[in-house]
Amino acid sequence: MHAHLALPEVRELIDNKDLATLSEILNEWLPADLASLLHGLRLDEQDLAFRVLTGRVRPQTFAYLDLDTQLRFLKTLPPEEASALLNEMADDDRTSLLSELPTASANQILAMLSPEQRTLARKLLDYAPDAIGRHMTPHFVAVKREWTVQRVLEFIRTHGIDSETLNVIYVVDENHKLIDDIRIREILLAPPQKTVSEIMNRQFVTLQDTDDKRTGVEVFKKYDRTALPVVNRDGILVGVVTIDDVMDIAEQAATQEIQKFGGLEALEEPYVTTPFWTMVKKRASWLVVLFFGELLTATAMGFFEKEIEKAVVLALFVPLIISSGGNSGSQAATLIVRALALGEIRLRDWWKVLGRELSSGFVLGVILGSIGFLRITLWSAFSTAYGEHWLLVAITVSSSLVGIVMWGTIAGSMLPFLLKKAGADPATSSAPFVATLVDVTGLVIYFSMAWLVLRGTLLQE
Amino acid sequence: MHAHLALPEVRELIDNKDLATLSEILNEWLPADLASLLHGLRLDEQDLAFRVLTGRVRPQTFAYLDLDTQLRFLKTLPPEEASALLNEMADDDRTSLLSELPTASANQILAMLSPEQRTLARKLLDYAPDAIGRHMTPHFVAVKREWTVQRVLEFIRTHGIDSETLNVIYVVDENHKLIDDIRIREILLAPPQKTVSEIMNRQFVTLQDTDDKRTGVEVFKKYDRTALPVVNRDGILVGVVTIDDVMDIAEQAATQEIQKFGGLEALEEPYVTTPFWTMVKKRASWLVVLFFGELLTATAMGFFEKEIEKAVVLALFVPLIISSGGNSGSQAATLIVRALALGEIRLRDWWKVLGRELSSGFVLGVILGSIGFLRITLWSAFSTAYGEHWLLVAITVSSSLVGIVMWGTIAGSMLPFLLKKAGADPATSSAPFVATLVDVTGLVIYFSMAWLVLRGTLLQE
Repeated sequence: MHAHLALPEVRELIDNKDLATLSEILNEWLPADLASLLHGLRLDEQDLAFRVLTGRVRPQTFAYLDLDTQLRFLKTLPPEEASALLNEMADDDRTSLLSELPTASANQILAMLSPEQRTLARKLLDYAPDAIGRHMTPHFVAVKREWTVQRVLEFIRTHGIDSETLNVIYVVDENHKLIDDIRIREILLAPPQKTVSEIMNRQFVTLQDTDDKRTGVEVFKKYDRTALPVVNRDGILVGVVTIDDVMDIAEQAATQEIQKFGGLEALEEPYVTTPFWTMVKKRASWLVVLFFGELLTATAMGFFEKEIEKAVVLALFVPLIISSGGNSGSQAATLIVRALALGEIRLRDWWKVLGRELSSGFVLGVILGSIGFLRITLWSAFSTAYGEHWLLVAITVSSSLVGIVMWGTIAGSMLPFLLKKAGADPATSSAPFVATLVDVTGLVIYFSMAWLVLRGTLLQE
Repeated sequence: MHAHLALPEVRELIDNKDLATLSEILNEWLPADLASLLHGLRLDEQDLAFRVLTGRVRPQTFAYLDLDTQLRFLKTLPPEEASALLNEMADDDRTSLLSELPTASANQILAMLSPEQRTLARKLLDYAPDAIGRHMTPHFVAVKREWTVQRVLEFIRTHGIDSETLNVIYVVDENHKLIDDIRIREILLAPPQKTVSEIMNRQFVTLQDTDDKRTGVEVFKKYDRTALPVVNRDGILVGVVTIDDVMDIAEQAATQEIQKFGGLEALEEPYVTTPFWTMVKKRASWLVVLFFGELLTATAMGFFEKEIEKAVVLALFVPLIISSGGNSGSQAATLIVRALALGEIRLRDWWKVLGRELSSGFVLGVILGSIGFLRITLWSAFSTAYGEHWLLVAITVSSSLVGIVMWGTIAGSMLPFLLKKAGADPATSSAPFVATLVDVTGLVIYFSMAWLVLRGTLLQE
């Protein structure tokens, strides 16, 4: 790796207007590093630094910039330079840039493209926003089965320059139907006289152009490929998706899973660039739903108002009881949602999971119940905080804890199965949902237990 | 893609002992699909189906099997077949198999390897469990800078067969120090007479063999590579890490992040294969920590016992109040933890985030507060549930909601910064931690607000 100049040194060169040295140094950098550098500069410095980039370095660096910076350059650069940048961008990068823009801006940018590139860009934008087609590049190397390895290598040398990847090449028939994919290693290891049909194994995996992009992530993971061919309904090879795009899709999907799990609608954009009111809306919607759920706790507590009047000590443990149920429920939901997402468990395994969670919940409940029992007993040895019937209170609290932790564990582990069975995403607000459910039912368990244990004493009519 | 036989048809061939047809069909399948098939079969069927696999298909399929199935085959196959399987496995796959075994079993397996492979396997196992070295393969193509492209292609043809990837080749000096990596596309596109030094750009990214494997994920994402060279302290090229292994590492890391976030210690293994008591321990440890935190709610409630005695109606809203603070806190924590993990925000951005979350918290608090106010007002219009001072109760509850939601939002968004600043993982139990913190402090806010609003009426001395 190169010993890079640090930010202050780049700034000094910019301040001294030593653009010759700056150009010499920066054009040696990797595009991804240049993009990080540019993101750290002031706007005027950014302009100067970007202007000294030459050749392929400039469009490659442009592709790594964030959306705002890209748009700024497209607006501030001379039109012919801006349109050169756009024409040289990889198709999939350009599609994702265009996807993020309002229609008017997207049309402005389309107008800056060469007619050929414009037709192509429009075609890719015709796919649904979540379709694989939006993430593919239509530039790939396709060969015929009767060609020799030597001819393939010559063809690559003369026609391969535009191809997004040369790690895999594709064999098509006379109608452009895909009949095999061949990793470049097979070509490189074969004697030059062999024909393509001799090294074909006809084992290949394809994506449909209209498939959801998340299917792509699954297929890449399962088959360990670096590129996958995309075909249309008729089996015609229309493009290629490469693993770098799939890693981005996977990261986005993980973020949305985590956000849904945290009890809010998934943001489409990074936290910092999401507009304030969009973010508030996405958070408020679930908070309000959960709040309506929690309003039931007030109703439940209302039912036991008489009991609380008689034994205020019962109220003291309400937060402890319901939060213990909520925490154990969140844990169980976390485990099961993730295991379902990874395919470690399936819908039909619910019965096995239930058995396991019943035992786990019991053990966890006994642990928390014992701590609760000890705490009340110890406090009562040194104070009168819990009154003369402290032992009965301790029994009420600890046995409720066992029940509530078990109930939380079961609710937390089964709700994801129910959501999945109903066709919903198991991640959707599972943890806060479970917490709300367990809050309401936990109160009922607690006060019922209190009635059982204390009806002869504290709760006497 | 091939029209695969479905499971029932494979079973029929096994039942009829038609192994010739079975072999013919199965050897056409992709290894990943064969592994899925085997995982779905009964053990006796599994044995038969695996035995008909021939050539490279068998070791390749073996690499995709889960650990338990791999171990079973190693034990039940004739020793020479088992040792052939092990000798033919890719180095990185073998290292991860050996990593998961207790020392005794690992030694048994090492003994089955050829002396050469054994030395290699031992070397890789010498790396720390989380080091990049464990995930690399020492088989790659290294060339000299004075070679022509033609010579490189010939070298690959004769020596490349063992290399894990041929998508990237490496240029080393006479001391095996890495001086560049060249994507195979550059070689394929260059005229045969060009020398390697003419197509070198000396821009390359390396991983250190002792780096943490998660660094690898970051570097792959940043530079969009399909393979990265691994060097030792002296810059000597010792191995290559490929993207398929990195995707597995990334998935594991995401799982552990989600589990930590859900309030439990990360499991090392899938939910289904984690032993019962290991799982209970990992869940109990955090539940107990959080329980001790929640015990403070009982203490806090104790301080307000007098107030509750005078106005039992106050107790009815305790679960609603604290859970609203908890939910808004979890939301904020989720957003910030993920944004920190993705590098969208940095430690120094805490001030900007605080400003944003103060406003979000206020708006969200006003929304929930208004709903709470309406609910109490409406109920009181039709019942005497909240007594004669229902309006004051409504004011107490709704203003507390504003305060608690704001406080939850701030605590939830700032705690991840504090954890990161302290060198801890911001994901660690953030959501339940915040919930516990907000539960305790929320009670103080609520009862203080009650004292302010109700001291002349319900809470009169």
